[in-house]
Amino acid sequence: MDGVGLGLDLGGTNARAAVVERASGRILAAFRSAVADRSPAAVAELAASVARQAAAAAGVDPRALGTAGVGVAGQCLGTTGVVLNAPNFGWRDVPLGELLARALGQPVRVANDLSVAAWGERCFGAARGLSDVLLVFVGTGVGSGLILGGRLHEGARGVAGELGHVQARPPGPGYHPRRCGCGAAGCLEAYAGGANIAARVREELAAGAHSAIRELAGGDPSMAGPVEVEMAFTKGDQYAVALWEEVADLLGTAVASAVTLLNPERVVLGGGVLLGSPSLERLVRARVASLASRSALAGLSIERTRLGDDAGVLGAALLPG
Amino acid sequence: MDGVGLGLDLGGTNARAAVVERASGRILAAFRSAVADRSPAAVAELAASVARQAAAAAGVDPRALGTAGVGVAGQCLGTTGVVLNAPNFGWRDVPLGELLARALGQPVRVANDLSVAAWGERCFGAARGLSDVLLVFVGTGVGSGLILGGRLHEGARGVAGELGHVQARPPGPGYHPRRCGCGAAGCLEAYAGGANIAARVREELAAGAHSAIRELAGGDPSMAGPVEVEMAFTKGDQYAVALWEEVADLLGTAVASAVTLLNPERVVLGGGVLLGSPSLERLVRARVASLASRSALAGLSIERTRLGDDAGVLGAALLPG
Repeated sequence: MDGVGLGLDLGGTNARAAVVERASGRILAAFRSAVADRSPAAVAELAASVARQAAAAAGVDPRALGTAGVGVAGQCLGTTGVVLNAPNFGWRDVPLGELLARALGQPVRVANDLSVAAWGERCFGAARGLSDVLLVFVGTGVGSGLILGGRLHEGARGVAGELGHVQARPPGPGYHPRRCGCGAAGCLEAYAGGANIAARVREELAAGAHSAIRELAGGDPSMAGPVEVEMAFTKGDQYAVALWEEVADLLGTAVASAVTLLNPERVVLGGGVLLGSPSLERLVRARVASLASRSALAGLSIERTRLGDDAGVLGAALLPG
Repeated sequence: MDGVGLGLDLGGTNARAAVVERASGRILAAFRSAVADRSPAAVAELAASVARQAAAAAGVDPRALGTAGVGVAGQCLGTTGVVLNAPNFGWRDVPLGELLARALGQPVRVANDLSVAAWGERCFGAARGLSDVLLVFVGTGVGSGLILGGRLHEGARGVAGELGHVQARPPGPGYHPRRCGCGAAGCLEAYAGGANIAARVREELAAGAHSAIRELAGGDPSMAGPVEVEMAFTKGDQYAVALWEEVADLLGTAVASAVTLLNPERVVLGGGVLLGSPSLERLVRARVASLASRSALAGLSIERTRLGDDAGVLGAALLPG
């Protein structure tokens, strides 16, 4: 079964598994299940169950598939399988690799979900065959995955790619940056992540901000989020225009700095907030084009993800040892 | 002569060559000469001359040394040997590799001087044997060199590491960022590079800024530079304190962002302005410690360069093909 691999993608909402033909990237069978119980043991059991279902549908014995690749929405300590921090699951220092290996009955390689997605896009998606790639993901949170020199770059401890936690708004005299879920203040994610955009809009509407967003959310500020901001932006709503300009400034500056520093050949944009907000995406692309160094921009292209929800399982199945 | 290599370091001021024992990093002989004529042909001839002198002193025939490594203060197009832009020499699109190979009579591998210095520090200096290293250099200009996954990271076109040209001060309403030598505005180097620090201090003193720097520069603002700022800072001079705080904020933010994104195990600080200004260095270290993500800071250490002026020739001699 050398030519076939098993990939798992564990998010706070769904657990997915797929059996993948390595040479072609073809998904032979895939299975997913909603995550109900987020305890480590329950997630490991669920992972084993979706893996068995996918393997059965593909007509293979998962234990014959060698090391299974696993992407998880959290910070992973190198290749130890330990998840340092996974806010979507409420985990800290969980030996996920060990739990999974026991539940699956086969060795596993655990990595961050965006690293895994970047690897998937690099193997068979929007960055196929390229050596230097920055995947930028803006959904509920903000993150990135790095392919450098043709290899997945996970960093010294395995926590590279935390683009969402670069400082976007350092504190200044009289300015208190927004707090981030990570505990720090002023992180990019605190301004550009979907959950924080929604929280901010709700606060500001509740405080009396004048915007078409209120009406677009059915008069209930607590229903407002990035979707309503995008809709209001397209109507020329001043509040929405100012908000998207600010978010694009911060995202664009961070991406441009990464481009200048790393000189990738491609930036791949993904995530529901960015891909679901064409106006924001356009502004971000314009900021990157104006803020990155000329020499790093020459030969750079910016594409959207191509694999969608399959990037995780595909990248996981193809992860090198 | 497999165990011995030839390294060259070409700066706007000096051309250096060294014959290096690869296994130990021992410099068997070194030679340097001031650069008078900065035309590409003259620099190539000078390079060949210092190389011959170093080889003669080491008692070896340079042509028996295989590929010579060359670090040059400029942007290099991948491994083609073409220098895209070298402000210190006034070069654009110079086929330096070709000129050098002809002058030296042996194949050459040309790379950016800070990439080469990072490789030298990684092989036998402040980051010996480490896999993920960020070298940050603040001298006349600002730049960096990246070792990622145990390899030199030069990027898709070879222009990675341009930390000096990340945007530190984007334009805003009523704010016009300082122009950088690269043609853009608001680059880190425009605020934190030694030449630009000196230019700014002179402008501001000429415009009437009150500071002890004026006296420290012998009453002549045109003699003021980073050295005088550091001296004034240690006396508690308000202007110097505010300036170093600002420079440290910008340098610290850029380095912290790179640390958060790349998760290196070591940052190596170098360059005359940073190492010659202990107060500034202390502030920069404090900013990195407060602005980088907790997870990337765990296990990170910050050291000063150890090889000094030898980093270039040593790294060049040890460059992989």
